[in-house]
Amino acid sequence: MSLGEGSLFPVENLPFCVFSAPGDGRRRVGVAIGSYVLEAAPVCESRGLASEAPALSAGALNPFLARGPVAWQRVREALAEAISRRSEVEPVAGNLHPLSDVTLHLPFEVADYVDFYSSEHHASNVGRIFRPDGDPLPPNWKHLPIGYHGRAGTVVVSGTPIVRPKGQRKRTTDPSPTFGPSERLDIEAEVGFVVGSGSRIGEPVPLDDFEWHVFGLVLLNDWSARDIQSWESVPLGPFLGKSFATSVSPFVVPIAALEHARLAPPPRDPPVLPYLDDSGKPPWGLDLSLEIAWNGTVVSRPPFRTMYWTPAQQLAHMTVNGASLRTGDLYASGTVSGPSGDERGSFLELSWNGSTPVSLGDGSERSFLEDGDVVTISATAPGANGTTIGLGEVTGQILP
Amino acid sequence: MSLGEGSLFPVENLPFCVFSAPGDGRRRVGVAIGSYVLEAAPVCESRGLASEAPALSAGALNPFLARGPVAWQRVREALAEAISRRSEVEPVAGNLHPLSDVTLHLPFEVADYVDFYSSEHHASNVGRIFRPDGDPLPPNWKHLPIGYHGRAGTVVVSGTPIVRPKGQRKRTTDPSPTFGPSERLDIEAEVGFVVGSGSRIGEPVPLDDFEWHVFGLVLLNDWSARDIQSWESVPLGPFLGKSFATSVSPFVVPIAALEHARLAPPPRDPPVLPYLDDSGKPPWGLDLSLEIAWNGTVVSRPPFRTMYWTPAQQLAHMTVNGASLRTGDLYASGTVSGPSGDERGSFLELSWNGSTPVSLGDGSERSFLEDGDVVTISATAPGANGTTIGLGEVTGQILP
Repeated sequence: MSLGEGSLFPVENLPFCVFSAPGDGRRRVGVAIGSYVLEAAPVCESRGLASEAPALSAGALNPFLARGPVAWQRVREALAEAISRRSEVEPVAGNLHPLSDVTLHLPFEVADYVDFYSSEHHASNVGRIFRPDGDPLPPNWKHLPIGYHGRAGTVVVSGTPIVRPKGQRKRTTDPSPTFGPSERLDIEAEVGFVVGSGSRIGEPVPLDDFEWHVFGLVLLNDWSARDIQSWESVPLGPFLGKSFATSVSPFVVPIAALEHARLAPPPRDPPVLPYLDDSGKPPWGLDLSLEIAWNGTVVSRPPFRTMYWTPAQQLAHMTVNGASLRTGDLYASGTVSGPSGDERGSFLELSWNGSTPVSLGDGSERSFLEDGDVVTISATAPGANGTTIGLGEVTGQILP
Repeated sequence: MSLGEGSLFPVENLPFCVFSAPGDGRRRVGVAIGSYVLEAAPVCESRGLASEAPALSAGALNPFLARGPVAWQRVREALAEAISRRSEVEPVAGNLHPLSDVTLHLPFEVADYVDFYSSEHHASNVGRIFRPDGDPLPPNWKHLPIGYHGRAGTVVVSGTPIVRPKGQRKRTTDPSPTFGPSERLDIEAEVGFVVGSGSRIGEPVPLDDFEWHVFGLVLLNDWSARDIQSWESVPLGPFLGKSFATSVSPFVVPIAALEHARLAPPPRDPPVLPYLDDSGKPPWGLDLSLEIAWNGTVVSRPPFRTMYWTPAQQLAHMTVNGASLRTGDLYASGTVSGPSGDERGSFLELSWNGSTPVSLGDGSERSFLEDGDVVTISATAPGANGTTIGLGEVTGQILP
């Protein structure tokens, strides 16, 4: 059996990470293969790609991301070939580290962070909860992928504890706001897209150029303090209700590994403006199956294939005004929710704003997060050669 | 007469910039003095501060900003002393470059960019224009400094041309949105605050620690496409209507130069929550006098002293949820508008949404920006020893 075969990190996947080994604080780039991390730089050197080694020896993926799509493909092919022909070459065996031994770090320095709102089911659920007498969707929702900028400096790697944020809250019955720890701390299960090649200011990036700019994707938990968010966010949007922390998985799965997960997104009605019109183009819907575990109980299985707006449309929209991209830009899909009650990507929706609490395996009930709770989001996708591609997981525990 | 005396860049100011000299692309740190830029590193070396020279030789202010307030003060004092005793030491004369000869670059790499909304007059004007039958201020406005994250990657230095953004617009009479160049391109005259020393995630920065973290300020023009903004921004706030470009002045004026500009902000009514309560503390209102020139005609003189929320309150609010600060974080005041009609900081307000166009010196009338228009925002403040401190200017021309 080949290295990685039958696991969620087969050679068809090769997600990138930044790791350090025990007793050696040096951060460098690796790829996951089976239950190991393979150090990328020495293997590339042994296969005639010494020019890529400096970028792969950095403490963040950014220098490698900046190398662009031709380099991404060369490195991916070199690593895959080294792994597949392992018996012939020594560098692989000498550069494997058991995943259980290494420390996984934030894989890249985040330049700008944008969060979209592209699940119709999620946006409709939020509309029904907060505006039961109005249209579930805002009037612009089907014309453009709504998004906003978040705080790049508080994006943290999976496993980082999340301190419950304090802030202003005001219930409708309160005469004025009060200050204290959030009482409605929530998650948002999302997929984040990582920009490799930047673009120039004033030059929009069309739909067709998605693969030239976006290297890969991560799982993302957009922790949200609903009480802080609802009081602050009219008229300029979410701010402190989100900015305390956003967790990402340690592995960046290359877009190239997801060739077999691509599918058509849901039909668009009404038709969209030409810069967003992907009809007749190769599709950028993605068949990713997410899973949310709350203290070990799986409470939801959000299907990414139901997302209304694709990551290619989000990229085209984000730059249509001439805004430039930088290596390390991260943009997230927005909460992934499917049509069914057990496919919702936030506890706000799963508990329907607290009216239908969620039962966990230990017999307890929850609407929002309690101190000590652990939430883990994981995902898989169909890969080449009948494999299943793992996106790893993003996990975090709430501290008081 | 001493170097800089009687100018807006006297020795009491010493704003920091990053410059390169003709025939020499090397970017390094300097301070403005009179009509010159003084290169900082060699002068510091000559005055026993060789340890600060590497940070001052960098191509952006970030390494110097990261050195913290003790280093900021030492460097400032060393430069001031070198300039004041110029006759005794050679390094000053040998390191002066005429301002007219040098290229001024973006002074620092922007980490996160936050934009506040802290002028009561501006927010009230916007409310009266767009919600004439409702309260001019949203219900949360006097309880917290409303803010949101903007795009750090499109912050550009003064003088960078601004390409008119394209995007989706929808007039109330249109059945569906159309795509094209913004027809309502506007400015927002603001002051931006530059974070030097970062903070740890989970640890709020109290009001009293403002000077430990914030190094200085810049002038800032938050270019705004009102038609794009109004269609996109419900429910998650401004996005493409702002993200195409934000211009900043090339000089960062140290907070230390503004000791004589500090004054009490307007009285707060209703009282604010304790983490924002600055009563009885040294005040962080600032007596900055802004001026907006539109194709050379001064159309407004916004007074910063009328801002309701201070930069210290903005910093305390931005971190009260545990969000960390990084060196290079930039947060802007929001549009500065005073109570009078000729003190408004945006053309939206000056033209009252197009109903009272602004007359320029060439006899033309304007409501929003036309291609080729040039807008320049400048400002001054009272300095030590009866001097006037200049903040320089931020300027930009609109390209089609």
